[in-house]
Amino acid sequence: MSGNSSVRTAAEKAKRAALIMQGLDSRTKDRALEAIREALEKNKTQIFAANQADLERAQKENLALPLAKRLVFNEAKLAETTEGLRSLTSLPDPVGRTLSAVELDSGLELYKVACPIGVLGIIFESRPDALIQIGSLALKSGNAVLLKGGREAKETNEILARLIYDTSLASGFPEGWLQLLESREDVAAMLELDGLVDLIIPRGSNEFVRYIMDHTSIPVLGHAEGVCHLYAAGDADTAMAVRLAVDSKCQYVAVCNAMETLLVHSAAAQAFLPELKKAMNEKGVELRGCEKTGQIIDCARAAEADWRAEYLDLILAVKVVESDEEAVSHINAYGSHHTDAIVTADRKRAEYFLTYVDSADVFWNTSTRFSDGFVFGLGAEVGISTNKIHARGPVGMEGLLIYKWKLLGSGQAIADYKGAGARKFTHKKLDKPYPAQ
Amino acid sequence: MSGNSSVRTAAEKAKRAALIMQGLDSRTKDRALEAIREALEKNKTQIFAANQADLERAQKENLALPLAKRLVFNEAKLAETTEGLRSLTSLPDPVGRTLSAVELDSGLELYKVACPIGVLGIIFESRPDALIQIGSLALKSGNAVLLKGGREAKETNEILARLIYDTSLASGFPEGWLQLLESREDVAAMLELDGLVDLIIPRGSNEFVRYIMDHTSIPVLGHAEGVCHLYAAGDADTAMAVRLAVDSKCQYVAVCNAMETLLVHSAAAQAFLPELKKAMNEKGVELRGCEKTGQIIDCARAAEADWRAEYLDLILAVKVVESDEEAVSHINAYGSHHTDAIVTADRKRAEYFLTYVDSADVFWNTSTRFSDGFVFGLGAEVGISTNKIHARGPVGMEGLLIYKWKLLGSGQAIADYKGAGARKFTHKKLDKPYPAQ
Repeated sequence: MSGNSSVRTAAEKAKRAALIMQGLDSRTKDRALEAIREALEKNKTQIFAANQADLERAQKENLALPLAKRLVFNEAKLAETTEGLRSLTSLPDPVGRTLSAVELDSGLELYKVACPIGVLGIIFESRPDALIQIGSLALKSGNAVLLKGGREAKETNEILARLIYDTSLASGFPEGWLQLLESREDVAAMLELDGLVDLIIPRGSNEFVRYIMDHTSIPVLGHAEGVCHLYAAGDADTAMAVRLAVDSKCQYVAVCNAMETLLVHSAAAQAFLPELKKAMNEKGVELRGCEKTGQIIDCARAAEADWRAEYLDLILAVKVVESDEEAVSHINAYGSHHTDAIVTADRKRAEYFLTYVDSADVFWNTSTRFSDGFVFGLGAEVGISTNKIHARGPVGMEGLLIYKWKLLGSGQAIADYKGAGARKFTHKKLDKPYPAQ
Repeated sequence: MSGNSSVRTAAEKAKRAALIMQGLDSRTKDRALEAIREALEKNKTQIFAANQADLERAQKENLALPLAKRLVFNEAKLAETTEGLRSLTSLPDPVGRTLSAVELDSGLELYKVACPIGVLGIIFESRPDALIQIGSLALKSGNAVLLKGGREAKETNEILARLIYDTSLASGFPEGWLQLLESREDVAAMLELDGLVDLIIPRGSNEFVRYIMDHTSIPVLGHAEGVCHLYAAGDADTAMAVRLAVDSKCQYVAVCNAMETLLVHSAAAQAFLPELKKAMNEKGVELRGCEKTGQIIDCARAAEADWRAEYLDLILAVKVVESDEEAVSHINAYGSHHTDAIVTADRKRAEYFLTYVDSADVFWNTSTRFSDGFVFGLGAEVGISTNKIHARGPVGMEGLLIYKWKLLGSGQAIADYKGAGARKFTHKKLDKPYPAQ
């Protein structure tokens, strides 16, 4: 869609669209979502044909099988996608929500009201259904968006973006609100456009996310790595700990919320480690243990680099610790502040872990694999953030919003509240939403 | 306090302190605030003496009078400060607040809980009372802080920081939680420490804030400029518009929320501009008008640069517009997204302005001077942000917090929720706070 025009021109257009989108009402947005769902279903033959072209090119170019698999957009994916659109349509509009209301004085009311951020720059991996998910989240949250999808999905992305864009324009959306960037050079150009682009959300390989973070002064929401831990405390039930370890490591090895390092308290290690080894052997997982681990089970020795490794593979680093404090310190020092879990029957011990582990998601007696926007009930997810500001952990629509302060007065000057005989602020909490016109 | 140790060492110490502070309970924090208030009162003679030394040096160095005035820390300032501490102590602890709670499944509960950000780097102007305000906000919000105050207030800042630090340590705060940086070189070094410092909050001159924003990849909360507007719509009551214009421009000219450009609809201009001129003349304000303004009143002609100028002085740019749309477009193009106000009797017209002006604070029938953390009832203010993420407008304690997701389970694996016979997530909203241990 950016066509021959430069990325700056595209961003300027998106900025103008974003200003108009601040005022889009919920009905217009939901009608557009409905129309998009219908357009996808009506045009599915063309979509599948475009996807077939991508798949054939992928085969010719010998694309790795996992990547090629993610590229597929078929009846099943379409059904999932339209189901997602339906559920997004039914969610309440987050824009315009009153976050706080206070009377400053009689006839002087202050409201903190949720509003869209503005222009988002979103870079995503090869799954074409991600385009629909991200585009529809941007639409419902009232943000303009510059999208860059995986090169492998080019044909599919183009037809999907065109359908979403054309349909939303017919439903009243402003020109330029959604545009597709075409190359990595376009992305590099976008990273320079602070003042036009308000937030960058990169998804995809760690190296790419790291590159983005290092090459822009625009705020970036995301995470470069998922070095997640499961900690079996001294009192951990062996069966539960082994079961959660297997789930955290093996249920899907290539994802950011899979466990990469297992910690076990020395008081539990003798009983636990042989069972862990048995279970992991069955799954084909290679164990790399610390010295103490090696004294209990036979396994490769972990090097310093293993404690920071995001394997995304059937490899697991294992370390014996002498205390909960040591477990927490290890996680805070070597982890990526993404997702970490403890297995213990002791609520107090769990709370120590949940309080002092400095990560977005901290879990008690569950698998690390639960950190996900759909699982959390956010409707959909634009990504998982390890930021310490704005949004942390799985990011849904709320992460695409900010607020503005609306003050409704009746002629008050600040001078009225200064000096002798000054009026006083009442600061009375109001239990009402921002008044409709 | 950083003494001879490097800024990196100081930040590492602050980081360790921040991890410990995640678990500080409300009573410890409030007791520390109480003790600090008492320590300030008990040591006031020494504080005033240190301030006297700063004032004498200022005089020797011919410091500009407004700066020297802000430097004063006397009985009146102490009373204001201790009053502020008392009110902060009485506020509820924002840390640990449950922001959302949802049952994912029976025995699997997810809580979004507010927590401190970590390590803040705060650079502030010459007012020594700002140190107490910022230090106490960091304390109550559970954040470690590296502080750099104005060079002019060196002696006063040192004794204040020492009193706050020593007293809080005696109340149970960890070593290194509050440290004073000593030079601009220290600040430059701090800007490099992403991974250790989580958020930079610069206050002070525009040039300095701009420098900070351009020289760090750490998130920055703040604003470089306050180019604020008051717009008198076509139906604006002349008396109210003039009164609010005078207040917005003149009540305190040197502040970021003072008006710099006045816009007036052509339908109101004939009646309004002569009255404005009369009132502004009385206050000694120089008017710089557009061509149409010049056809109605006698005044200097505004150049293009005037529309972007933050005068912080008795100068006002004046422009006649032909529509509300033109007013909004002008503000979005030339303003700094800080604070903008409209004067109109028409609620619908007001709402158009409040919706489409893309600024942190948008006001109807009040002076721009109301954008302030104390006025807004936030208790205290660390600054005003024109960011589009995290916090916008006046920033109080809430802006110093983020959240983490705590998931309390009973052995659930994600595999239980996949494939044939999978368990389903219930996603039932819970109306209860995060359970105490």
